[in-house]
Amino acid sequence: MISGETKVRIRYSETDQMGYVYHGKYAEFYEIGRTELIRRLGLPYGELEKQGIFMPVLEIHSRYIKPAYYDDEITIKTTVRELPGVRMMFHYNLFNQEGELINQGHATLIFIDGKSRRPIRPPHELIDALQPYFTE
Amino acid sequence: MISGETKVRIRYSETDQMGYVYHGKYAEFYEIGRTELIRRLGLPYGELEKQGIFMPVLEIHSRYIKPAYYDDEITIKTTVRELPGVRMMFHYNLFNQEGELINQGHATLIFIDGKSRRPIRPPHELIDALQPYFTE
Amino acid sequence: MISGETKVRIRYSETDQMGYVYHGKYAEFYEIGRTELIRRLGLPYGELEKQGIFMPVLEIHSRYIKPAYYDDEITIKTTVRELPGVRMMFHYNLFNQEGELINQGHATLIFIDGKSRRPIRPPHELIDALQPYFTE
Amino acid sequence: MISGETKVRIRYSETDQMGYVYHGKYAEFYEIGRTELIRRLGLPYGELEKQGIFMPVLEIHSRYIKPAYYDDEITIKTTVRELPGVRMMFHYNLFNQEGELINQGHATLIFIDGKSRRPIRPPHELIDALQPYFTE
Repeated sequence: MISGETKVRIRYSETDQMGYVYHGKYAEFYEIGRTELIRRLGLPYGELEKQGIFMPVLEIHSRYIKPAYYDDEITIKTTVRELPGVRMMFHYNLFNQEGELINQGHATLIFIDGKSRRPIRPPHELIDALQPYFTE
Repeated sequence: MISGETKVRIRYSETDQMGYVYHGKYAEFYEIGRTELIRRLGLPYGELEKQGIFMPVLEIHSRYIKPAYYDDEITIKTTVRELPGVRMMFHYNLFNQEGELINQGHATLIFIDGKSRRPIRPPHELIDALQPYFTE
Repeated sequence: MISGETKVRIRYSETDQMGYVYHGKYAEFYEIGRTELIRRLGLPYGELEKQGIFMPVLEIHSRYIKPAYYDDEITIKTTVRELPGVRMMFHYNLFNQEGELINQGHATLIFIDGKSRRPIRPPHELIDALQPYFTE
Repeated sequence: MISGETKVRIRYSETDQMGYVYHGKYAEFYEIGRTELIRRLGLPYGELEKQGIFMPVLEIHSRYIKPAYYDDEITIKTTVRELPGVRMMFHYNLFNQEGELINQGHATLIFIDGKSRRPIRPPHELIDALQPYFTE
């Protein structure tokens, strides 16, 4: 298992007239969470794309527990619980600056070849970087 | 059961560098789907808010089956399968212009009082408008 | 000179906590306006990209005269006043459903070759389609 | 004159299929720039709104000099050149991680009373905090 945390400051553009962060924006926070987790493994996602590997999202689930507000500083905790095969699943817990859990969810991504757009195995570098976190 | 369809044209701003519609945008399409369904019942969502009733999203789930592309004309089919209580669930099937199913999902919303921000029963007008679709 | 009108319905996601449409969203409305104008000339922008021609934005200016609100139906009036060279300028007037002018602006785009990313002349088909509107 | 710098990391959702950051997103970067500048003056914008003061955008201008790309770290340099009256103007210079100027622009905002939605003078605290930067 591997976890990482990153923070995001809520922008005005992310609020809606209810005074909450628009629920569709959380997909972006999830994206930031996994990007930063992968970066710390030494594999910026941009590098993967340069190697011709893309990771579209297959499925996403999100539970809104408490609202987030303008200018909140949200902590995104991202966890990978299993070594990826063709698919990779990320789990999310989001907290506000009071430490309250405000959102929980997961996203499943698939590795595809940028040209053929067909599923492929994840790159060796990623598996090698993840391996140490998944041995008991 | 009640269903309705509405169409949305994909904007350039909704694409990402993978050449697909960004997955986070589907939450907006779901929102458009339920807005238009409720409008046909004679109850524009804006009217609900003017009455002091808000409907934040509690939970959302989305499965991406095929990508959508720039300038595609997507049909959003929205279905309500059960009369709402404090919560209201919407089911979604999205189709591209070739009639292919590209996305499936659902969203659960809650009725709250705009001032107290506490859960409330749905307005009578909404229940009255829905009732005829839910008698066997 | 050539003008065209298209309508857009304001989405909940486009509002902010001020209760107005977020000002950054108007760039998307401008994009919709020019896309529909070009489509009516028989040249969907997607076709241009398939031919290897891209049109990034060089400059944009926007004046916010009155706010737009959730669920408003905005009319986007797009005008091209001069035949394009390497650059093409679009002028915009946006009206709400009461017919009030709410926003004015323009956007200048440049034609580039998708591979070299260098400026190029606009495609003949576009000039041919525009020509009849620019003879006195 | 007062200037401040803040950084923003480009999100995947901010790219479009051209492979660039979507031009409409720069309005958000401008917003981040002025938010952070005002915060350093000890006046978080959220506090202004709690006092009943809102700052909608009246006018925006943006010149796109070089594209920004996914995962770029953009420096937003925000400058206020004149003490605000009813209006406040912010000037922007955006730089990529190579230090290249990629975008220039400005935004003019107006102070309004949240209830009446009428123009008002800027709050004393803001003027007091700005004053030291505008004496020769």
